[in-house]
Amino acid sequence: MSNSASPSLISYQAATEAFRSGTDTPREFLERAIDRLEAFEPTLRAFAQLSLPRARIAADAATARWRDGRPLSRIDGMPVGIKDVIETFDMPTGMGSPTHDGYRPLRDAASVYALRDAGAAVLGKTKTTEFAGGYPTDTRNPHDPQRTAGGSSAGSASAVGAGILPVALGTQVIGSVLRPAGFCGAFGYKPTYGAINRGGSHDFQSHSCIGVIAASLADLWCTTYDMVQRCGGDPGEPGLIGAEQLAGPFKPKRLIHLETPGWQLATVEARQQLETRLAALSAAGVEIVTRRSDPAVDALETSLNDILQFGYDIIGYESRWPLKSVAYRDRMGVSPGVLAQITKSDALGLEGYRALLARRVALRAEFEQLAATADAFITLDALGAAPKGITYTGNASFNVAASVLGTPALTLPVFADEGMPLGLQLISGQHTDHKLFAIARWVLTAD
Amino acid sequence: MSNSASPSLISYQAATEAFRSGTDTPREFLERAIDRLEAFEPTLRAFAQLSLPRARIAADAATARWRDGRPLSRIDGMPVGIKDVIETFDMPTGMGSPTHDGYRPLRDAASVYALRDAGAAVLGKTKTTEFAGGYPTDTRNPHDPQRTAGGSSAGSASAVGAGILPVALGTQVIGSVLRPAGFCGAFGYKPTYGAINRGGSHDFQSHSCIGVIAASLADLWCTTYDMVQRCGGDPGEPGLIGAEQLAGPFKPKRLIHLETPGWQLATVEARQQLETRLAALSAAGVEIVTRRSDPAVDALETSLNDILQFGYDIIGYESRWPLKSVAYRDRMGVSPGVLAQITKSDALGLEGYRALLARRVALRAEFEQLAATADAFITLDALGAAPKGITYTGNASFNVAASVLGTPALTLPVFADEGMPLGLQLISGQHTDHKLFAIARWVLTAD
Repeated sequence: MSNSASPSLISYQAATEAFRSGTDTPREFLERAIDRLEAFEPTLRAFAQLSLPRARIAADAATARWRDGRPLSRIDGMPVGIKDVIETFDMPTGMGSPTHDGYRPLRDAASVYALRDAGAAVLGKTKTTEFAGGYPTDTRNPHDPQRTAGGSSAGSASAVGAGILPVALGTQVIGSVLRPAGFCGAFGYKPTYGAINRGGSHDFQSHSCIGVIAASLADLWCTTYDMVQRCGGDPGEPGLIGAEQLAGPFKPKRLIHLETPGWQLATVEARQQLETRLAALSAAGVEIVTRRSDPAVDALETSLNDILQFGYDIIGYESRWPLKSVAYRDRMGVSPGVLAQITKSDALGLEGYRALLARRVALRAEFEQLAATADAFITLDALGAAPKGITYTGNASFNVAASVLGTPALTLPVFADEGMPLGLQLISGQHTDHKLFAIARWVLTAD
Repeated sequence: MSNSASPSLISYQAATEAFRSGTDTPREFLERAIDRLEAFEPTLRAFAQLSLPRARIAADAATARWRDGRPLSRIDGMPVGIKDVIETFDMPTGMGSPTHDGYRPLRDAASVYALRDAGAAVLGKTKTTEFAGGYPTDTRNPHDPQRTAGGSSAGSASAVGAGILPVALGTQVIGSVLRPAGFCGAFGYKPTYGAINRGGSHDFQSHSCIGVIAASLADLWCTTYDMVQRCGGDPGEPGLIGAEQLAGPFKPKRLIHLETPGWQLATVEARQQLETRLAALSAAGVEIVTRRSDPAVDALETSLNDILQFGYDIIGYESRWPLKSVAYRDRMGVSPGVLAQITKSDALGLEGYRALLARRVALRAEFEQLAATADAFITLDALGAAPKGITYTGNASFNVAASVLGTPALTLPVFADEGMPLGLQLISGQHTDHKLFAIARWVLTAD
């Protein structure tokens, strides 16, 4: 973003009071978003498709409802971006792959259906890496267009970080929501596994999850809650657990510093900022537990030693089917990395896959047991600033644990590295999402 | 089928020895299937799409492999039909709905990918009721074209029952595999929940399952096993459990006659045949347990009293999203029944849905506890013969329990009613599929 070294996050929830009072309208909010889109998109390349006429119709309808005091939801009229692996009936779903150019499903995904049912104005599809994997898109970081926005939810993070959108959907199976959100200075939320219905989203792997990138905790919570009331969670799952209202700040008694394999790889600046923060929390009366003070934490850290490879092994096996099917149809449209992954995963076999699942069950039990002894886990969101260039979306060592464990995770844009945003990550036990937000609010208040 | 009052089932597994010896070939097998297709399809209307050139190429490739003694699998070259809610890259997936005319996904579903990877010759897409629900297709019963083939996997059952195909895929969330299979005189198999990867199949509900309709138990088992080795089960599930080879006949010690709510509705002829069979099994030394002889069976029967409505309530909530999304896009293309279902399911809400899930967990626990006390459950597959006419696909009261409980179920074409085929159904605990086949073999041997 050439005109602004530090773009601002634009919250929708902060504007709704003005919609009620009539000093602002969803349509005006949308037009400001479109103004920023026109200014920044040529640099950022965050969008794969735009749907401005439909977005304006939705915003106009919402404007009338807010004026009449009868909004459909807290996100009525909200401009929102949809990661381009999630189906939309009015725009192609390109999957970040030339094999799916112009692919046109005939319905909205469950999450998109829910957003529209709540009145949201779907502005466009946001760019993704190839099939939400490692092969990058050309999206730029709003804090430095010479750097990656991260991946795979690159366009969603860039658009929110740039202040174009208040909210955008992503998906995370390794680190695809939290890492790009942190790199772009946005708030990121990966809920408990299954909390948001994945129907019609091409993130089918067994620990994948739809997540949200937004301008504030209120935007994250209100969007997720109001969606799930309409589309539910994954079939057979209870969906997002927690109260409708974002909880007030909650001061934790006990936080576990979870190093993860990322800690050994993180930059000095990144580590120092977390350590300073931990010291401040400690000074504020929060007990900070580490692998040095608690053998159970040390045991979990040891169990997580190869968690990144472990996560890739599971989704590699699960991804053979769609990737091989696409490669049979269009061999020249699939990246070499994907072809190499298929070959590797073919060797595992069904028995090998079952062994991975059994290990994941054990890992989750170990984590939940420890999670019950504290209020939350605290760590970094990334090794440091977003890498320079756009050919590498960054290391996911800090993000993969919450994905594999199926637990909620939040990234808060409170740190910096090389003058770029860097996230503080909070993680907690399955279905404690609402409390995790309360702790995050307190951490921000204490910032 | 005007030329044959009693069409024959044509097994592929019975032919493979001839492929090895060179007295028959997969290509000749396919051509015979195409001959029958051309003779019967004008009456039966079992197919939504055909893919003959690709099927012939696959059969030719398989012919060479069998001749060389190196088949890819036991189903190499096998003609197979795919229910038209399961995606295929080379044919549209029409969902039995005008809203999806010409819908063209850009990949094969996991199950179809696995079939092709094993060498199978995909002959075409088989007709389904609207979105695999209750609104019928025009498919006819091969034993009497004035009658329904059942639903929702109507075309698959009709094509196998007519002897056109040895094997076809279906999906079952209430009774959509076993009921049409039984009505058409075919073998039907709904595996344990999650045993066959549903990726790319539009049966997304939380107890839906891909199933197989075939000419024999060997065709069912070999197809399912050889598929699952390639595509796995649903992500996060272990997939089909059991040995590669179909087990030899196993004489059960103890069978539970599970009446289900179907028993009170079944025809006199249907009930008499099951009772005669139970008496014969008893005379052969198999202990037959009933709700009158075992209070635990009576308790389960009572728990299953409203199982049909319960099953519909769960999938009604889960189906709101895709059906509403399609209805928003094309209101005139959706049947009145679907629109009524949406309205009804909207009233349930997320909390109501969670209560249904909790009840399902309790039901499954009750069932599994009882299943552990016997070798299997035995019952009818349908109330009686396939209904006359094609506007009603028949009652699923005998089928829904296995669906909701996530257990394996088989139907064997050994009974008759009104001169039409009628199935004997066997059900057992989750992941005991292999043993259930062994019991079914014994039941057939004792036939």
